[in-house]
Amino acid sequence: MTAPGATAFIGATDDFAAAKAVVFGAGSDATTSYRPGTRFGPAAVRAESYGIETYSPYLDRDLEETPFFDSGDLEFPFGSPARQLEAIEARADEILAGGRLSVMLGGEHLVTLGAVCAAARRFPDLHIIHFDAHADLREDYLGEKLSHACVMRRVHELLGDGRIWQFGIRSGTREEFAFAAAGHVTMRRNDAATLGAALDAIGDGAAVYVTVDLDVLDPAELPGTGTPEAGGMRFEELRAALMEIARRVRVVGFDNVELNPMLDSSGRSTALACKLLREQLLAFVR
Amino acid sequence: MTAPGATAFIGATDDFAAAKAVVFGAGSDATTSYRPGTRFGPAAVRAESYGIETYSPYLDRDLEETPFFDSGDLEFPFGSPARQLEAIEARADEILAGGRLSVMLGGEHLVTLGAVCAAARRFPDLHIIHFDAHADLREDYLGEKLSHACVMRRVHELLGDGRIWQFGIRSGTREEFAFAAAGHVTMRRNDAATLGAALDAIGDGAAVYVTVDLDVLDPAELPGTGTPEAGGMRFEELRAALMEIARRVRVVGFDNVELNPMLDSSGRSTALACKLLREQLLAFVR
Amino acid sequence: MTAPGATAFIGATDDFAAAKAVVFGAGSDATTSYRPGTRFGPAAVRAESYGIETYSPYLDRDLEETPFFDSGDLEFPFGSPARQLEAIEARADEILAGGRLSVMLGGEHLVTLGAVCAAARRFPDLHIIHFDAHADLREDYLGEKLSHACVMRRVHELLGDGRIWQFGIRSGTREEFAFAAAGHVTMRRNDAATLGAALDAIGDGAAVYVTVDLDVLDPAELPGTGTPEAGGMRFEELRAALMEIARRVRVVGFDNVELNPMLDSSGRSTALACKLLREQLLAFVR
Amino acid sequence: MTAPGATAFIGATDDFAAAKAVVFGAGSDATTSYRPGTRFGPAAVRAESYGIETYSPYLDRDLEETPFFDSGDLEFPFGSPARQLEAIEARADEILAGGRLSVMLGGEHLVTLGAVCAAARRFPDLHIIHFDAHADLREDYLGEKLSHACVMRRVHELLGDGRIWQFGIRSGTREEFAFAAAGHVTMRRNDAATLGAALDAIGDGAAVYVTVDLDVLDPAELPGTGTPEAGGMRFEELRAALMEIARRVRVVGFDNVELNPMLDSSGRSTALACKLLREQLLAFVR
Amino acid sequence: MTAPGATAFIGATDDFAAAKAVVFGAGSDATTSYRPGTRFGPAAVRAESYGIETYSPYLDRDLEETPFFDSGDLEFPFGSPARQLEAIEARADEILAGGRLSVMLGGEHLVTLGAVCAAARRFPDLHIIHFDAHADLREDYLGEKLSHACVMRRVHELLGDGRIWQFGIRSGTREEFAFAAAGHVTMRRNDAATLGAALDAIGDGAAVYVTVDLDVLDPAELPGTGTPEAGGMRFEELRAALMEIARRVRVVGFDNVELNPMLDSSGRSTALACKLLREQLLAFVR
Amino acid sequence: MTAPGATAFIGATDDFAAAKAVVFGAGSDATTSYRPGTRFGPAAVRAESYGIETYSPYLDRDLEETPFFDSGDLEFPFGSPARQLEAIEARADEILAGGRLSVMLGGEHLVTLGAVCAAARRFPDLHIIHFDAHADLREDYLGEKLSHACVMRRVHELLGDGRIWQFGIRSGTREEFAFAAAGHVTMRRNDAATLGAALDAIGDGAAVYVTVDLDVLDPAELPGTGTPEAGGMRFEELRAALMEIARRVRVVGFDNVELNPMLDSSGRSTALACKLLREQLLAFVR
Repeated sequence: MTAPGATAFIGATDDFAAAKAVVFGAGSDATTSYRPGTRFGPAAVRAESYGIETYSPYLDRDLEETPFFDSGDLEFPFGSPARQLEAIEARADEILAGGRLSVMLGGEHLVTLGAVCAAARRFPDLHIIHFDAHADLREDYLGEKLSHACVMRRVHELLGDGRIWQFGIRSGTREEFAFAAAGHVTMRRNDAATLGAALDAIGDGAAVYVTVDLDVLDPAELPGTGTPEAGGMRFEELRAALMEIARRVRVVGFDNVELNPMLDSSGRSTALACKLLREQLLAFVR
Repeated sequence: MTAPGATAFIGATDDFAAAKAVVFGAGSDATTSYRPGTRFGPAAVRAESYGIETYSPYLDRDLEETPFFDSGDLEFPFGSPARQLEAIEARADEILAGGRLSVMLGGEHLVTLGAVCAAARRFPDLHIIHFDAHADLREDYLGEKLSHACVMRRVHELLGDGRIWQFGIRSGTREEFAFAAAGHVTMRRNDAATLGAALDAIGDGAAVYVTVDLDVLDPAELPGTGTPEAGGMRFEELRAALMEIARRVRVVGFDNVELNPMLDSSGRSTALACKLLREQLLAFVR
Repeated sequence: MTAPGATAFIGATDDFAAAKAVVFGAGSDATTSYRPGTRFGPAAVRAESYGIETYSPYLDRDLEETPFFDSGDLEFPFGSPARQLEAIEARADEILAGGRLSVMLGGEHLVTLGAVCAAARRFPDLHIIHFDAHADLREDYLGEKLSHACVMRRVHELLGDGRIWQFGIRSGTREEFAFAAAGHVTMRRNDAATLGAALDAIGDGAAVYVTVDLDVLDPAELPGTGTPEAGGMRFEELRAALMEIARRVRVVGFDNVELNPMLDSSGRSTALACKLLREQLLAFVR
Repeated sequence: MTAPGATAFIGATDDFAAAKAVVFGAGSDATTSYRPGTRFGPAAVRAESYGIETYSPYLDRDLEETPFFDSGDLEFPFGSPARQLEAIEARADEILAGGRLSVMLGGEHLVTLGAVCAAARRFPDLHIIHFDAHADLREDYLGEKLSHACVMRRVHELLGDGRIWQFGIRSGTREEFAFAAAGHVTMRRNDAATLGAALDAIGDGAAVYVTVDLDVLDPAELPGTGTPEAGGMRFEELRAALMEIARRVRVVGFDNVELNPMLDSSGRSTALACKLLREQLLAFVR
Repeated sequence: MTAPGATAFIGATDDFAAAKAVVFGAGSDATTSYRPGTRFGPAAVRAESYGIETYSPYLDRDLEETPFFDSGDLEFPFGSPARQLEAIEARADEILAGGRLSVMLGGEHLVTLGAVCAAARRFPDLHIIHFDAHADLREDYLGEKLSHACVMRRVHELLGDGRIWQFGIRSGTREEFAFAAAGHVTMRRNDAATLGAALDAIGDGAAVYVTVDLDVLDPAELPGTGTPEAGGMRFEELRAALMEIARRVRVVGFDNVELNPMLDSSGRSTALACKLLREQLLAFVR
Repeated sequence: MTAPGATAFIGATDDFAAAKAVVFGAGSDATTSYRPGTRFGPAAVRAESYGIETYSPYLDRDLEETPFFDSGDLEFPFGSPARQLEAIEARADEILAGGRLSVMLGGEHLVTLGAVCAAARRFPDLHIIHFDAHADLREDYLGEKLSHACVMRRVHELLGDGRIWQFGIRSGTREEFAFAAAGHVTMRRNDAATLGAALDAIGDGAAVYVTVDLDVLDPAELPGTGTPEAGGMRFEELRAALMEIARRVRVVGFDNVELNPMLDSSGRSTALACKLLREQLLAFVR
């Protein structure tokens, strides 16, 4: 008699040594300013993943032939964003040190900072491709510098000008849009129509970290997120954009954040997040 | 120590004298024939408005630079549509008398009749631009003439032929469509593709009242409404249409009705309604 | 004093003899492998149908002029898919025997097998047009051959190659896609762009059974279904495809399955299903 | 082939002539001042009644041996409480005229006024036994005299002092409690411990109308109601009280009001209302 | 790096050899006649168990000192109750063969039949203590003998008269109550006040299987169940009854069934089920 | 024209100088370890308070004659519990400095620490009466000392032995119960039967701070809380206990925490919290 199977993401291997990618959950909503619940994102994605197939008809590949390991969720206390970021950075660093793709499931967007810190240290020329409804470029939020609303500003401090490529943005303060317009980051509003040009500029050799705030999708596609913003991308547009990235540059890590399963009792937001993750794993894992 | 801040719509001014527009709520569902709850629309919009930014990247304007006043909700007893319409007409009249833009948040669609009465008295050449899934042109509904299902018929009685321009219509009785086809109102089905021609016909000088039944949007975009009707407009189409109206004619009043927050526990319908109102205020207030 | 009116679908006639179509419910979720609740589909559709109009502005026809009879739901015990299929087949056979159109409301997709058995016996050249997100072509599901996941495989056993035309498919195992690629069924992925060619191949004279798994629609349009799959068709695409079928071939029966009203508390999925059924009845009943 | 069975309350007879009681629905929430939805009460009770048994182990009787007829819902326009009351009074009058027990399902509490008017005309010595969390004794509510909050005050105007016996009351204004204390009505707070004394005072011969605002129950027992008030009665207490009434006096009519199925997605509030109605029918129908 | 921990019930040991009890899930709702969803019961209990403590202040014992193993859920196809019962019987038999306590989490009540078959073979003098709102003594349900509504009748066929002791019963057909009254089973209505006498009759030496249909609890305590029946037991009454059983007789197996987490979005029904299971494990495992 | 009225708790005065109590919200869930959402507690209580009466029939007093001021919610960033506690302490200190009763609405239980710090400085002999399902006596939680699970341990560090009186406790670790048993705090399990003795021991003259974790109530009474624990107190028991406290000792401050309105869509948990607060204000304000 055996104990119940670990609830890893569907298709995950038990063979860590063979894995080319490692998934981990960072279920934090430490700085969520409005409706909380993203903490349950990783668990929901794992549980619901058994409702999708391991096979992708889009790519004609199967997760069962794509060696990735699911290392579970980071366990951290609520109440200390800084300590959470440390834990995230350590995990991502360990994954990258083994030459593996780092795959993080949020949690709120602040968690990205930890993973990017790890990646930036290892890949000094790192570029960030950022899908989001919100610019996340505030200097601070109610005096707090470590906030989901500031995460890309912190990343900019780390990487400098010309390294952040934003797509789908349709909300922010006047200052955030001015910050982008001043050339610090490259911002595409509402969609990803300029992705090709961005990839040209980034170049084939560069290391890229992709962060997807799932609210870049239209709330019609993904209602289960804390700050829904009308006028977003369709699933198919986002999927196609990610596939283009996979074909053109070297992705060293990625994350999908801000899924809030508490806000979508139908489960379809989580189902979409599972399908997207399958496609990303199949495309990004080499 | 001060009392908790008034929950006006985000960005509202406290300076009534300086305001160029006045928002008020008419949270009635007195004649709602199916799922009630639109009464909670105005309160939901105010509360959720703090989840959006005051700045619009679409217009590069900010609500904080757009002087509008929020005069709260009309308080009226349930059970008497006629008395509710009187209260609405009085409030709208007072706003228009001060040369301000009248902005009403419904509530069910019948409330529009009160505001249009006030506007029609002051602007005898008034045109109505009406976005809706439903024609609302019934002569009566179960014998009742003051019903949301008849509101545009009542408006037609007030204004006569050639003054009502409908967009997005995709539901009604055979009689309602025949009434439109007979030339009493100009009806565009499903979308707003003919808006430009309508604005040409209306002309620059005319006073226009815009009424948006939010169910003109596809239920995928706005599930929180009592009579969802598939095949509707996307948010971006509606936003663009409203911006075109703002550029071309003189809007003297508008309303957004039929948001039912009880039917969308995710909150995204209300979030959309907040964003739409921000764009309308920024575009319509001169 | 009379008893409460029977809750037939809106516009149904009481005159069975005059009816050209018969609606019946097969509210089974006997083999539903994930979230159950499709059993409540037929009852929900009937109850919510009073929220739509009997008149279609798309077709300029009215259900009240389209004689169809609603024979209610089949009552069967849960726990025996085979017995359920027998009951369905008997009902469909009785309807077809009278020269009437058989209209079944699911229930999970397995129910289609019963209705197709009846139709295939009567129309040996029967073709199946199948809208679905999932291929439903598994040989078995956890050892069970009578499962919603295998229904089209069972239909293929019945009809043979060249008779099944699938549209909108975007999920399945590698084996299912291979089965289709081997020429046993004609599968169109994601949408219905090749419908015209399929209808050409089927030809005007052939008898056609149309089965619509409502999850062919994008979950944004229809969240109320058990296995939502992103990247689907819009309502308007599906409606247009069905109208094209009505114009081109002879439909002898159809079903709409996998509506799960428990998963959409807003009611809009059911409202869409009602509207779709109205359009189908108006178009398919001659 | 037959049309779907009428959705009468479980166990209802089709034989009107033989019926000793008639159930009808008055699904109004015309004056509901807070969360609406009681309009769906009667339909929910009918639909859910098939989840309970017709047999009562409490009484060892069966609804199938208790001839009652279900005459469906009154259909009235929303927006006119006065017209609704007229329709209710007419229906109740017709039922009482036939020597039958009048059984009304609300709807909000105002509907009781219509049924009591009919009963009072026919039984001049009528007493009212009233279970409720709220006194409902206001002179007016926001200027409106026909409101659920005033219904017992209106009944008092009709019947005079000494005729209204309230139980379970735990909310009201100071004026309402003073009105009761002044001897106009006999009010028991929180529970029904004094019911026996009240029945003694009423006497065996008197005609009694029983109105149950279901919010007399503790919200733990019945969450599906618009104005839940903690500290209420348990189901078993209410059931026992009703049985005592049945044994002691002649009940000529009764109603159960203020069930709001929209506020209890679990369905248990409606299930309780069904069970209660079964016990009442079995006990009150002679 | 390790894979995510198995989601066993909180406090479960990994050491099967040392375990004195084995928990397994039988997440079937194959014959659920009304609202389905009990299939998700076992998974919900495991996931939510991390929200309770392993320590019981009632018993001053801790699950971490109580060796039990969690062998996960049986995986079976939907659509074949008979095959499900076989799988359950095999699992229970294997557990009992090792001298361990069999602990099953339902699933609908039919699953009990499989576990009782295994126990009855091994303990020919087996008694059943049955907590439930419903008698479950029907001969058949819509012609089906393997149904949750008949499970105790099937158990009676297996064990004969005098072996089944029911508590809390408050719903059933006249025939079911007559069957009990005829002496085939010993039925206590509404509560467990006669438990002491029953335990006296059973005697210390006898082997006992305890089956708890959680709907024996009042719906106020446990709303998350498919057929809520007002007038039930309180948690504390049920807990005390189970503790008395633990003190007085030898429990060889038990199950808790009919939790439906889909019907209680607050999660409190599942939390109660977790707490109850903890107390049972601490009391029944010797 | 005036701006919409501030949404203070019903019956609050605008006259700060005259106020004898000040209500403020501390809507934090910074350290919530499971389902978040208590942050919305204060706003929900204010909004729903308009659904209850200002008059209490229990006390025959009215909030309109009880001068209290509502100073709104503290605004603090998420992510820093220590800074939140500072803000709370400052607000409570300001209130107490004016000789007023400090009334705090949580938020999670950690917020109590801030208010108790302020009260303890001003009233060195302060006693704490603590109603809760959980002991909250952990030394730390996942290494974090500032956690809701440790709040009473922190309070004990501040006040020492003999000052904390706990009621209703029914969950905790073995260590927590041992800590209490060692005499550091006085713990009553499950209910408040020993309250009288505790009040005797505290004595009339002592200053008392009352903290009510609303999960002390049975989840049947209050489902809207993050860690529901079966077997709790009834509303009426809690109300009576609070009234006894009001009669016997001098309450200088109190809080009600852990209401989570996101977990109870029916609104009844919030309604109960409103009613409780009314009774507390009426009883504690002198």
